[in-house]
Amino acid sequence: MAPVRRLVVDVLKPHDPSLVAFTEQVSETDSVAAVTSSLIELDQEVQNVKLTFEGESLDVDAVEAAVEELGGTVHSVDQVACGEHVVRDHPTLQDH
Amino acid sequence: MAPVRRLVVDVLKPHDPSLVAFTEQVSETDSVAAVTSSLIELDQEVQNVKLTFEGESLDVDAVEAAVEELGGTVHSVDQVACGEHVVRDHPTLQDH
Amino acid sequence: MAPVRRLVVDVLKPHDPSLVAFTEQVSETDSVAAVTSSLIELDQEVQNVKLTFEGESLDVDAVEAAVEELGGTVHSVDQVACGEHVVRDHPTLQDH
Amino acid sequence: MAPVRRLVVDVLKPHDPSLVAFTEQVSETDSVAAVTSSLIELDQEVQNVKLTFEGESLDVDAVEAAVEELGGTVHSVDQVACGEHVVRDHPTLQDH
Amino acid sequence: MAPVRRLVVDVLKPHDPSLVAFTEQVSETDSVAAVTSSLIELDQEVQNVKLTFEGESLDVDAVEAAVEELGGTVHSVDQVACGEHVVRDHPTLQDH
Amino acid sequence: MAPVRRLVVDVLKPHDPSLVAFTEQVSETDSVAAVTSSLIELDQEVQNVKLTFEGESLDVDAVEAAVEELGGTVHSVDQVACGEHVVRDHPTLQDH
Amino acid sequence: MAPVRRLVVDVLKPHDPSLVAFTEQVSETDSVAAVTSSLIELDQEVQNVKLTFEGESLDVDAVEAAVEELGGTVHSVDQVACGEHVVRDHPTLQDH
Repeated sequence: MAPVRRLVVDVLKPHDPSLVAFTEQVSETDSVAAVTSSLIELDQEVQNVKLTFEGESLDVDAVEAAVEELGGTVHSVDQVACGEHVVRDHPTLQDH
Repeated sequence: MAPVRRLVVDVLKPHDPSLVAFTEQVSETDSVAAVTSSLIELDQEVQNVKLTFEGESLDVDAVEAAVEELGGTVHSVDQVACGEHVVRDHPTLQDH
Repeated sequence: MAPVRRLVVDVLKPHDPSLVAFTEQVSETDSVAAVTSSLIELDQEVQNVKLTFEGESLDVDAVEAAVEELGGTVHSVDQVACGEHVVRDHPTLQDH
Repeated sequence: MAPVRRLVVDVLKPHDPSLVAFTEQVSETDSVAAVTSSLIELDQEVQNVKLTFEGESLDVDAVEAAVEELGGTVHSVDQVACGEHVVRDHPTLQDH
Repeated sequence: MAPVRRLVVDVLKPHDPSLVAFTEQVSETDSVAAVTSSLIELDQEVQNVKLTFEGESLDVDAVEAAVEELGGTVHSVDQVACGEHVVRDHPTLQDH
Repeated sequence: MAPVRRLVVDVLKPHDPSLVAFTEQVSETDSVAAVTSSLIELDQEVQNVKLTFEGESLDVDAVEAAVEELGGTVHSVDQVACGEHVVRDHPTLQDH
Repeated sequence: MAPVRRLVVDVLKPHDPSLVAFTEQVSETDSVAAVTSSLIELDQEVQNVKLTFEGESLDVDAVEAAVEELGGTVHSVDQVACGEHVVRDHPTLQDH
């Protein structure tokens, strides 16, 4: 199977663990080389964050399990890059 | 025939298989070097996604067959790059 | 005559041939090194597409003939680059 | 006199000659290394186009004469770059 | 644990110490290679600032302690980058 | 005194001399390596233009004198870069 | 103390000295390698300008003293970069 090299997921997580601890722990998942998490919005109960993972061959099931083990839920998968290299998604005239 | 080197398609797909499994499987199509799929929007029934394929000489029929075999339908072909290299589509004064 | 190196045309074409077949065939025109076609909009009858051609010395008559042979009509010529190199059209304070 | 290296003019031209023929012919002017013409808008009578010329030392009188010989009129000169190199016009806080 | 390489926090601080003194002092925290602080807004009582830290392996607890020791409070953690390299958070079609 | 390396001025000038002649002549000022002039707007009486000068050590008095000798008036000085190199003015969160 | 490498301040100054003379003189401050000043707005009494300083280790007190000696007042400090290198303040999803 062609390797997944980049993965963007939209996650809802509780306030505890903090975004720093959460990011450190999901970045420990096997196959993850690096991850950046960005706060989208927060309310009293949850944080909505965007997680961008990179790796030579990401184990997506393990990534999702790690998110859930920390109390998070994957709200949506927003981008997946597979294959020999990462294809950049350039805007086209159809993007709004 | 001049080879197709880059192809952007707008696809409607069911929720199952997931976007990750869907992308992994279409990236296995002969002639596809790499692909990135981006979520445009989703409702209860379907996901609308943008797929960008790159390869030395893409077999577009095989790509479309792979999409359909997974339950997807190609809603529109948004961009096609053919020839010795990939021509970038720069904005002109006529683009809105 | 100074060679045409880049040409952007706005084309109306029927749905058949498909955008992929259409692009493959116009890219076969003598003097065309590569071409990218981008969908602007479509209705039931026609597709409106932007075609960007590159070559060392484009034969514009042959390009337009190829478009028409495939049932397309050149709605407007949006950009032409001639000469020793391709001049980039940077925005000025007069562009809106 | 310091050489003019880049010149942007806003031109009104009749539909005949076509934008391709017009661009090819003005690019033949002595001192012009390359030119790009971009369509701004068109109506039944005229085309309004933006022409960007580059050269080591542009002969602006000859360029304007070539435009007029082809039935065009220079509506305004929008940018002129003179001297040892081309100064890029970066936006400042005063540009709107 | 995978190292934190980049951290963006939104901080409320009193006017004293000044933004310069505040930035100099938090940049002295162990593990911080460099930091940039940007003013978001200010009123009579407080300054709201965005702090971006970089380091080989940031000690986030020490960073937060340094902010608090200077009278600041971390209002939110806006971005965390962990792992072998810093993943850039590119916009996707889901970002608004 | 630290040398001025880049200078942006907003100038009102009569239609005669033309923008090309005007730019050629101010670029002849001692200390000016290159200049780009961009049309902001024009009415029947005057042209409002933005002039960007670069040089190793610009003689600003001589530049202003050259502008005035040609019938122009410096409406405002919009940007001045001094010192060992040209500092780029990046946007901050305070720019609107 | 970690060195300040980049500093952006928002300054109100009288019309005299001119922006050129003002910039030349603040750039003479010890520790300043280069500075760019950009006009934000002006009225009959004052000019509001943005000053961006760079240096290996800026002496911020001396910079502020130089501004005040010339009749200017520092209205706000908008950005401070400290440490081994200059951290670029990239936009996050929290910036508006």
